[in-house]
Amino acid sequence: MDTLRIGLLGCGTVGTGVVRVLSENAEDIRARLGVQVEIARIAVRDGAKPRDKVIDPALLTTNPSDVIDDPAIAIVVELIGGVEPARTLIGEAIARGKHVVTANKALLATRGPELFEAADARGVDIIFEASVGGGIPIIRTLREGLASDRIEEIAAIINGTSNFILTDMDREGADYAAMVRKAQEAGYAEADPTLDVGGSDAAQKLSILMSISFGSRIPWTDIHVEGLDTVTATDLVYAREFGLKCKPIAMARLVGEGLLEARVHPALLPRGSLLAAVDGVFNAIFLRSRGLGPSLFYGRGAGMMPTAVSVVSDVIELGRNLLRGTSGRIPHFAFHDDLLPAMRLRSMDEVQTRYYLRFQVADQPGVLGSIASVLGARGISIAQMVQKEPSGGTDGAPVDVVMVTHRAREGDVRMALKTIDSSVVTRAPTRLLRIEEGFGA
Amino acid sequence: MDTLRIGLLGCGTVGTGVVRVLSENAEDIRARLGVQVEIARIAVRDGAKPRDKVIDPALLTTNPSDVIDDPAIAIVVELIGGVEPARTLIGEAIARGKHVVTANKALLATRGPELFEAADARGVDIIFEASVGGGIPIIRTLREGLASDRIEEIAAIINGTSNFILTDMDREGADYAAMVRKAQEAGYAEADPTLDVGGSDAAQKLSILMSISFGSRIPWTDIHVEGLDTVTATDLVYAREFGLKCKPIAMARLVGEGLLEARVHPALLPRGSLLAAVDGVFNAIFLRSRGLGPSLFYGRGAGMMPTAVSVVSDVIELGRNLLRGTSGRIPHFAFHDDLLPAMRLRSMDEVQTRYYLRFQVADQPGVLGSIASVLGARGISIAQMVQKEPSGGTDGAPVDVVMVTHRAREGDVRMALKTIDSSVVTRAPTRLLRIEEGFGA
Repeated sequence: MDTLRIGLLGCGTVGTGVVRVLSENAEDIRARLGVQVEIARIAVRDGAKPRDKVIDPALLTTNPSDVIDDPAIAIVVELIGGVEPARTLIGEAIARGKHVVTANKALLATRGPELFEAADARGVDIIFEASVGGGIPIIRTLREGLASDRIEEIAAIINGTSNFILTDMDREGADYAAMVRKAQEAGYAEADPTLDVGGSDAAQKLSILMSISFGSRIPWTDIHVEGLDTVTATDLVYAREFGLKCKPIAMARLVGEGLLEARVHPALLPRGSLLAAVDGVFNAIFLRSRGLGPSLFYGRGAGMMPTAVSVVSDVIELGRNLLRGTSGRIPHFAFHDDLLPAMRLRSMDEVQTRYYLRFQVADQPGVLGSIASVLGARGISIAQMVQKEPSGGTDGAPVDVVMVTHRAREGDVRMALKTIDSSVVTRAPTRLLRIEEGFGA
Repeated sequence: MDTLRIGLLGCGTVGTGVVRVLSENAEDIRARLGVQVEIARIAVRDGAKPRDKVIDPALLTTNPSDVIDDPAIAIVVELIGGVEPARTLIGEAIARGKHVVTANKALLATRGPELFEAADARGVDIIFEASVGGGIPIIRTLREGLASDRIEEIAAIINGTSNFILTDMDREGADYAAMVRKAQEAGYAEADPTLDVGGSDAAQKLSILMSISFGSRIPWTDIHVEGLDTVTATDLVYAREFGLKCKPIAMARLVGEGLLEARVHPALLPRGSLLAAVDGVFNAIFLRSRGLGPSLFYGRGAGMMPTAVSVVSDVIELGRNLLRGTSGRIPHFAFHDDLLPAMRLRSMDEVQTRYYLRFQVADQPGVLGSIASVLGARGISIAQMVQKEPSGGTDGAPVDVVMVTHRAREGDVRMALKTIDSSVVTRAPTRLLRIEEGFGA
């Protein structure tokens, strides 16, 4: 074998990047692998669409079978995205004994276990470095570098669009809707940004990290998710007064034998802490493991070249295994998976953290005392409190009372807020943001 | 083969950690590798020294040949440190066809090329994840994850002792000598901390990173090094007023065809930037590469368990290659090494960056103007300037004039300072710190 032939399914932004990386680094890759990597065929939906000149039009086909059925193609790179037809095509590629590289988080989070099972049965590999954190080699790090360690906690900024929006809301004091428009104009947010800002994208990626770190098979749809719509410019200003900065956090931790806590929501972090310094579209994954202690991996979470570099790294790894005759052995879940208990999720009521609470109440004597009493009765202790001047100045305008609590049980906080929000002095539902610390030294 | 037998040379802190990691994760590692890993023999200098109970006394020997000559031992783990006798023992292990894991930065930085050459000739591997950044999988990341990319810049905090001292000087406003004593009491600094705070340790690690990233064979002793003694508590206070924080930085970048800039010194970074948030004994390595753009890897740079986990990861990688019959192929330099030109270092005179300058001058009219004239004549432009009140209050006490320049050429700055420092109005040598930006988004 003097040429490793691969086929592409899909040739959008990332696909074009893959062609470019393979072409620009052809000599390096040949030196590394001992053989050259050749793109034999590229299946696209629209054969007439204008494409970057790096794409050889002779390679294009609108029939995916031209890739999947070609016996000369050893590795199929799936860059279509979404569940179908990607799932069916990958299934067919596996059935024909081809190895698969994919960046498709939605597919892996939704149908990963069955695809991995099919791959195991057929003795082929599926690898997916680019599915989480674009250019950050987090999957390989979890799989290889931490092979003799146990992950205990993950806290990640893995949706670049959400981070871009929150970074700008924090810098400019602008409101959420304006920043979504800005992100769309900058090309960072989709026309329909729901998956990003709603938290689903991060939950899918978190479930992939959980599968490798904890052997978890918990569906991403079971993960507690809150979107950016829970954050207002006002809360960011108040949070700053407490030395806190808002970040879109996806986190999971081992909290007991076979028991995980997992959640995706905006969270307030201490300013000056490491994750709080991750701004703009950048991603970062913080890990805490038994042996290594805390570690963090930072980089671009998306974009043509970072994602393409990750995809090509996967191609090189599969290629090297093929040449050495050691294919079909890349672990898909935590490698000690069969030694671990089946993982289940802890109820959100049992979460314990510190809370930022903004009460919007009537500006009258005794209100503060009654709020404190309700919290106290649930065992929730107040660490700091600020009562704001009424903004309107008009009689009867509501006033903001902002509190930061000590650690409390979320179930208790929810029950207390239910009581407070149903009170006649409360003018609007209480704003709640979780404060997360300890993602660092 | 149902057992992978390894031998240890040295059994201090890290060695004890390796025994512990192998013992605590025995089942995981067996599941991962398919065979168990057994420590067959441990060579130590002092056989009578009391040791952790995890160490089986029956395995100890004071004769390193018991490890090196044992045909059952496939992998030798060298944890002695220092150049000799480590170099001789590793050379003998290689000659007997054994693979080598080492954490020995001093040895690699000093004699790496010849050891790698011997290993290549004998068809064995030397791997060294723990030699840089203890628990941070940076060597593997450079070698594997960035296989299809080109590194353009490295900026790292890779000496934990120096970072601990600067972090505390910044937090407490204490002076350098007091913080060195504190670091020694905390067990982070050696009795003779010269290697750490003088910058040699960081230069050795940087030269290892440069060899993998750029294929550089530049001796670590050629790298420009400045120690922490160039930093005073006063400068940290002034730097804070400019929004800057001091960190011990080791950096290298490709600045032309075959031309590298490399230096190790305390540098001022913008507060709120990512590397500035790396505090205490923690390490971080920032990379900029052609495809991935900026990335950063953070974690513990030393300590028993982090370092031991990295060593065991190396053992697992070598073990897997042995079992697959694919040993002897781990690249020691940048994999595209033979495609790259031989690297040479740029003169420090050619470095261009922004500078923090503190002039200690007579408190008299015209001094500021004459400083500005000397700088201006060399094309050095002042971005910000603060003139401090004389601290003593006594007539003739010197006054601090603090400036931050725009980008300037270091050779020009040095020439200007030579003129200024020889002036009759200058009371003490001018303090210079480089301001480094752009290690982040």
